[in-house]
Amino acid sequence: MDIIAEIGERAKAVDEQIMSYLEEGENQKLLLAVQHYPTAGGKRLRPVLAGAVAEAVGGAGKKAIPFGASLEIIHNFTLVHDDVMDNDSMRRGRPAVHVLFDVPTAIIAGDALFARAFEALSEVDVPAHSTRRLLKLTAHTVWLIAEGQQEDMDFERIPADELSIEDYERMVWKKTAVLFECAARGGAIIAGGTEEQIKAMGEYARHLGAGFQMWDDILALTGEEKVLGKPVGNDIRNGKRTLIVLHALHELKEDDPRRQTLLAALGNSKARTQDIENAIQALHDCGSIEYARRLALDHAAQGKKMLEMLEPGPDREFLSRLIDYSVSRKI
Amino acid sequence: MDIIAEIGERAKAVDEQIMSYLEEGENQKLLLAVQHYPTAGGKRLRPVLAGAVAEAVGGAGKKAIPFGASLEIIHNFTLVHDDVMDNDSMRRGRPAVHVLFDVPTAIIAGDALFARAFEALSEVDVPAHSTRRLLKLTAHTVWLIAEGQQEDMDFERIPADELSIEDYERMVWKKTAVLFECAARGGAIIAGGTEEQIKAMGEYARHLGAGFQMWDDILALTGEEKVLGKPVGNDIRNGKRTLIVLHALHELKEDDPRRQTLLAALGNSKARTQDIENAIQALHDCGSIEYARRLALDHAAQGKKMLEMLEPGPDREFLSRLIDYSVSRKI
Repeated sequence: MDIIAEIGERAKAVDEQIMSYLEEGENQKLLLAVQHYPTAGGKRLRPVLAGAVAEAVGGAGKKAIPFGASLEIIHNFTLVHDDVMDNDSMRRGRPAVHVLFDVPTAIIAGDALFARAFEALSEVDVPAHSTRRLLKLTAHTVWLIAEGQQEDMDFERIPADELSIEDYERMVWKKTAVLFECAARGGAIIAGGTEEQIKAMGEYARHLGAGFQMWDDILALTGEEKVLGKPVGNDIRNGKRTLIVLHALHELKEDDPRRQTLLAALGNSKARTQDIENAIQALHDCGSIEYARRLALDHAAQGKKMLEMLEPGPDREFLSRLIDYSVSRKI
Repeated sequence: MDIIAEIGERAKAVDEQIMSYLEEGENQKLLLAVQHYPTAGGKRLRPVLAGAVAEAVGGAGKKAIPFGASLEIIHNFTLVHDDVMDNDSMRRGRPAVHVLFDVPTAIIAGDALFARAFEALSEVDVPAHSTRRLLKLTAHTVWLIAEGQQEDMDFERIPADELSIEDYERMVWKKTAVLFECAARGGAIIAGGTEEQIKAMGEYARHLGAGFQMWDDILALTGEEKVLGKPVGNDIRNGKRTLIVLHALHELKEDDPRRQTLLAALGNSKARTQDIENAIQALHDCGSIEYARRLALDHAAQGKKMLEMLEPGPDREFLSRLIDYSVSRKI
């Protein structure tokens, strides 16, 4: 089975659980609003990750289902609020919640999803100290996601060439990888793993998330338009400060003409196709795309090392293929 | 000691705890935003209630502090988001979070407060089944608050005379009393109370919350402007559908001129002082204010009955005085 199909297969177990959590309530409009993104798809990567880790660490894949559902609901809560803040009108091919309903309903729906996620968490069948630990881990993760979103907005006001790569990477970690890390750590906690295993699974997921994000940024500059389904170089036009762009701005000296080529296109909605292509060429020339690619592959390699402490088996194998896939995919 | 002073005294123990939860983080702006309402005051009624119940039920007032802090943080999270949705620009004499910062920061600050509240909850030192129960209770309470806020907005689109008193009371319960109920039930759970005690404390708090809310509505129509600090009858001008107004609209027949007097002033920003006074007189005449007063006093009496199953002592005494105060205060 290819990895995409396997993710889909593994997602099935948690899908029903997620929907069952989103069906109970007295306000029909609110229920429709909270169900809007979860029913529109999504790969369920976080629950799949939690389940595979729990199974690989201690055969506890089933026990991890309410936890996985909780994380997927949290993920959807952040999407609902992010779309309000970023004023994004579409998501997963549907109108955003705040567009289909209104902004107040979207704010409430996000809050309600958040609440339901923690109700789900109360159903995880583990000993007392693990319940408290899962609760602290998950709640603290949401705090970090909130910080990441705040930093993302703060950074928009800082010129790209004044932003440090470290600050940027930490922001990206909070916005994306931290929930993967929570999934993996939580899965290991539920399986009754050792401290070493819990830590290693967290590291694995951190590398998975970081590699995944970098590969996304690379694909957006080097992928095939037909496969991606969006114009290559859009990130440049939108002024997105990816690791690749930040690296180039730190590498290229003030008087380097390639720096001017890049800055002229970055965030310039009127940039012509040729300007974008020149900017991408500049990123190639100064080694920034190659730098990101090496870093992404390095993340995958480091992540895989973390899996070595697990017993061999189909779930360890799946986790290994998952991280390879994250830095080799064409879409 | 008068009851206000005693609430203040009891609030001190939890105040420090609340602030300690809101000091840790990497984003300075976000920290300022989450601290903005909690540092501006508030009576800390929910933590005080949780602490008094925990102490009265099983001498566990201290154990209930992180739980009380969690509820106060949740209360503040709902205030931050409500102010965004209702477009209210002031709170506790300060500019609202979304005014001082911006709407996205306010949405994030609310989410971050919510997250921190559940981190606090993980620190409550109780057995496993109680941790799970507290988590489920608190998370479900937030879901209900979200429903209440949604219903409040939905109801605004329904003409006042088509709104049922039952639907309205349920909405108000969700928006306010449910968090009091959570505080009291949680306090009893933390103290290791019996099922009967947990239930009774929840009932007590439900009556406390309902009576408190009704008294607020009565004061807004009958209080002294100097004491209240806001114009008497403002609720009429703002079109607020209090229980009093709904009762009158259900009592007064279509052709009753007092119905016209009331409807002419309700939600009419141009209503003259005399129009407002006439509307209040109509509410007196048809017995709606007296109806609300009787109901509020009845809530207090029923709430006090619930306290009878507790051992006599200063905390039971405090809870009894608290509910009396809720329906006799002048402010």
